[in-house]
Amino acid sequence: MPTQSSSNVTTMRWSNGALEMIDQRVLPARFEYLAYDSAAAMAEGIRSMVVRGAPAIGCAAAYGVALEALRLEKSSPEAFRSGMEKGFEILAGSRPTAINLFWALARMRRIWDAAGNAANAVVSARLLEEAHEILAEDIRINRAMGAAGAALLADGARVLTHCNAGALATAGWGTALGVIRSAVEAGKKISVIADETRPFLQGARLTAWEMVQENIPVTLITDNMAGHLMAHGEVNAVVVGTDRVAANGDVANKIGTYMVAVLARRHNIPFYVACPLSTIDRNIASGADIPIEERAAEEVMGFRETQWAAQGVNIRNPAFDVTPAELVTGLITEKGVVLAPDREKVAALFD
Amino acid sequence: MPTQSSSNVTTMRWSNGALEMIDQRVLPARFEYLAYDSAAAMAEGIRSMVVRGAPAIGCAAAYGVALEALRLEKSSPEAFRSGMEKGFEILAGSRPTAINLFWALARMRRIWDAAGNAANAVVSARLLEEAHEILAEDIRINRAMGAAGAALLADGARVLTHCNAGALATAGWGTALGVIRSAVEAGKKISVIADETRPFLQGARLTAWEMVQENIPVTLITDNMAGHLMAHGEVNAVVVGTDRVAANGDVANKIGTYMVAVLARRHNIPFYVACPLSTIDRNIASGADIPIEERAAEEVMGFRETQWAAQGVNIRNPAFDVTPAELVTGLITEKGVVLAPDREKVAALFD
Repeated sequence: MPTQSSSNVTTMRWSNGALEMIDQRVLPARFEYLAYDSAAAMAEGIRSMVVRGAPAIGCAAAYGVALEALRLEKSSPEAFRSGMEKGFEILAGSRPTAINLFWALARMRRIWDAAGNAANAVVSARLLEEAHEILAEDIRINRAMGAAGAALLADGARVLTHCNAGALATAGWGTALGVIRSAVEAGKKISVIADETRPFLQGARLTAWEMVQENIPVTLITDNMAGHLMAHGEVNAVVVGTDRVAANGDVANKIGTYMVAVLARRHNIPFYVACPLSTIDRNIASGADIPIEERAAEEVMGFRETQWAAQGVNIRNPAFDVTPAELVTGLITEKGVVLAPDREKVAALFD
Repeated sequence: MPTQSSSNVTTMRWSNGALEMIDQRVLPARFEYLAYDSAAAMAEGIRSMVVRGAPAIGCAAAYGVALEALRLEKSSPEAFRSGMEKGFEILAGSRPTAINLFWALARMRRIWDAAGNAANAVVSARLLEEAHEILAEDIRINRAMGAAGAALLADGARVLTHCNAGALATAGWGTALGVIRSAVEAGKKISVIADETRPFLQGARLTAWEMVQENIPVTLITDNMAGHLMAHGEVNAVVVGTDRVAANGDVANKIGTYMVAVLARRHNIPFYVACPLSTIDRNIASGADIPIEERAAEEVMGFRETQWAAQGVNIRNPAFDVTPAELVTGLITEKGVVLAPDREKVAALFD
């Protein structure tokens, strides 16, 4: 079993043959874990955003594969094989934008393909071991990104972030919030400005909650206030996460990230993207080719059961947008910071 | 009594010695009028945003003065005078940013000051007449702005707007939405993209509702989606209202307007501000001097009784921001369109 990240938030944990995950739909009003024991249940957990955040989705999908193998362990070899193929497929169809999902499934498939004629129980044990390793590796990578990124933040910095790229979006520690945690751990005074991040309110509900758990000062604003604060000199840096980075350094991230990047550029505020290498999709030339998920109208019409919008309107609900590489001051990776990213510098990360 | 605007929305109406106003806090779930019969009640109606939008606030405040005079008509001349002074004061303290409030109160004070030793009933009748005239004039001005602005919108244009600068924000017809209504009346096909406008959700609740009443196609987005739509060529023009324009053409408007203006500039999309001359504050040199209201934390923590944010966070809630004149393609006024506004062009409007 993997070690924990030593943050105060444990997003997912292996327990009694199941993966338990914090239900991020109901935070912060309720803090509770839901247990998952099959690929289908895990796919639904990802789709409905019980778990969200690109690295966390990758870990959850890896466990989804392992859980399916454990569930089918007593089946015939044929039923095992066909059941596992179906499990891979249903997990791959859960959400389209975060590349970590496909990256984690590809890693699990390599274990699956290498298993040959090994007994079901041997295969499921190997798959579970790989899922544990993906989770442990994610925490190590977050720690390495944190160390690299912390150096970019000055003592006393007021750091704006969008959505939640924290422990809740990863196996622990976090990408963007991991950078902030590492800066605080290094003795810097950092305060966070959190965009609320409509429509799912990851900033108001998750980032704000995480920072309160860590005793890091956090100020919540609506998404449309970031420009006003920047114009008044109240933002020193921006750090966000990402769901997929194209080969040229274009960044897909939660809807609204692009607006923040455009404003940061206007105000000469550095705009950093915390980006594990697993989030870089070298098969995609530019951001224009990244698939952008459109989600249900209900999310924009209101929040949960509270629906406030006028009936009869049309709705758009793209869940992500693309920030061109030219607006990115630096990609913070586990291999260090890539300033002014472009195709050559991104490729060099993989040498 | 003033004529109506011939839009399908009557924001306020004189009825049985009181001013009835649509309760904009509960739209679109409930459509109901509240009746106001004193300055104190009207000030509270303005503060709590039963009525909002700079021109509508001006009209409401004017009626607040007239209603106070009617209420005190039977008082002694001394009680009448001191009561009216108190009424002016309480109305002036209701909200700080919209200049129309102070403009309308100044007009009412001129009538009050000119009344001399006239009988209470004569004074109250003159004040009511002036309030009616302010309302009628607002509709005429909106119509004139509409005619001037409609020419700027191409047939088939997709027009993004922020907050509500519609019939609900005025005595009728609207400023930004008045321009859209006039373009539609002139036979153009226009569709509207409405930012939901957190935290009070004027876009989702009021602009969307108004456009549905008028059968003008409207698409609702969260505030952080505007950049994504612009980047995909889905926005042809932006038209917004304003709460106060400085002498140099800087524009204070609902929080988030500045972000939209910055994005519009990046994408070479024209950014127009519908601005009656009553909204121009010639006593303020630039936007930096416009007082920006900070409202209660509860508005950002959630919406109405639904509070979703994590406990323990700090909150910022500036209700307005300032868009510098350099980002404004044109001010649409009742005297025509002022392209690339600056101090000289703004001053020339008053010659």
